[in-house]
Amino acid sequence: MGGSLARALAEVEVPPAVTGWSPSSRERTAALRAGAVRDAPPDWRMAVRDADLVILSAPLRACCELIAKVATEAPPNATLSDVASLKAPVARAAAAAGVENRWVGSHPMAGSEQSGFDASHASLYRGARVWTVADESAGPRVPLLHAFWSSVGARPAEIELREHDRLVAKASHLPQLVANALAVVLADAGIDPGRLGPGGRDMTRLAASSPEMWRDLLEHPSLELVEGLRALARVSERIADLVDKGDLDEVEAIMRSTRAWRRR
Amino acid sequence: MGGSLARALAEVEVPPAVTGWSPSSRERTAALRAGAVRDAPPDWRMAVRDADLVILSAPLRACCELIAKVATEAPPNATLSDVASLKAPVARAAAAAGVENRWVGSHPMAGSEQSGFDASHASLYRGARVWTVADESAGPRVPLLHAFWSSVGARPAEIELREHDRLVAKASHLPQLVANALAVVLADAGIDPGRLGPGGRDMTRLAASSPEMWRDLLEHPSLELVEGLRALARVSERIADLVDKGDLDEVEAIMRSTRAWRRR
Repeated sequence: MGGSLARALAEVEVPPAVTGWSPSSRERTAALRAGAVRDAPPDWRMAVRDADLVILSAPLRACCELIAKVATEAPPNATLSDVASLKAPVARAAAAAGVENRWVGSHPMAGSEQSGFDASHASLYRGARVWTVADESAGPRVPLLHAFWSSVGARPAEIELREHDRLVAKASHLPQLVANALAVVLADAGIDPGRLGPGGRDMTRLAASSPEMWRDLLEHPSLELVEGLRALARVSERIADLVDKGDLDEVEAIMRSTRAWRRR
Repeated sequence: MGGSLARALAEVEVPPAVTGWSPSSRERTAALRAGAVRDAPPDWRMAVRDADLVILSAPLRACCELIAKVATEAPPNATLSDVASLKAPVARAAAAAGVENRWVGSHPMAGSEQSGFDASHASLYRGARVWTVADESAGPRVPLLHAFWSSVGARPAEIELREHDRLVAKASHLPQLVANALAVVLADAGIDPGRLGPGGRDMTRLAASSPEMWRDLLEHPSLELVEGLRALARVSERIADLVDKGDLDEVEAIMRSTRAWRRR
């Protein structure tokens, strides 16, 4: 996410001065060589020292841990953001650090099952919805973040924090775990992924997502996600029953309704 | 499928003479105008009259119904094929018509949730596996079909009929119905498809597939498919339990195993 953002910013008509940091020297060198960042110092303190805006692009737990430290090392008026896909834990960390008035959380609905600078590309955010959430005290900083995300072609929109986390539990985290569940079933059935067609490939692409990144997100228990998985189990059982007893009128009705929904 | 095949054949270095037929005059006109076919007579009998090879590109039930009729109207030595994604029903229809020695079934692992000539494109089969199945008596015709599919960039491979149908029940039909099940859950939760990210979009793309086409396929009860759906329900319930009680070691282990499988 961070690599793609740096690449996208480098292509903006008047590019901002971007300093990158990664715990991996290999990643820092790759970003420098690609011209995605102007500087990539080995010490993160150097990277945020003169920042107007710091975007934490890291797994959720790291974002939560870093925010207080970054707030201290960055200039006192620097705006802080992150791209984690749950916002409540980061909001809590920002409040605990007393910097909720400087934090505007971001969540770009973009990315893939891959990670690292090698997987980055400048067009990642083009056309993508970016949700922003902020405490009332950070309200004046929201337009800044929206201008920032618009500059890389994204479509920013503010959303209430709890509504955001409920939405992504269903719209993002549930599809992720369904891809994992389907991959378990296919692997158990001895299906080689090379034998999948385009549909099966799409339906299992997310099964290659980073376990570490997802573990962080799942540490924050989500009723919506658990309910969604159980609902999926019920619907799958129901479709199995219908197919088994040949009630194809009902299966067809389900398919008609999902087609209408998907084409909306 | 048929439209894309015609378009692909039109781009072959020495294009074969392709005659197209569709029950829709609009489709026939569109294919003619696009230069995908040389001729598109309104009567299908005219379309097959001089054919060396007839490819039935229709829903499964239509393939089964058409094969005897086409065998009668086409020249007695014309090879017959189809692109339905289950092969046992077509094989039975070919045998019932006494033309199993002229039929080589094809199943391209290609296509999308869309259908009709408007959705066709010449590169659809490029790099795609095309399974072929044939009765022993049609063996000499298999290399002809393989050369045919290779000419449009596909990767043909022969497979035993029952093995094929078992494979696609899991590798193709199961992912389809999982996409429908996920779409039901998301629609019930009030999620607008416009709010999905790239992962959620991929995971529900197939939910827009043709209900009519799928109904035909599901008329042939598949133990593998029903078992697959029930297994998916079990795995989903299990992941829900693990997330609910915070057993993230186990969730991470599942994600590691699916990533290893998917990257194979």
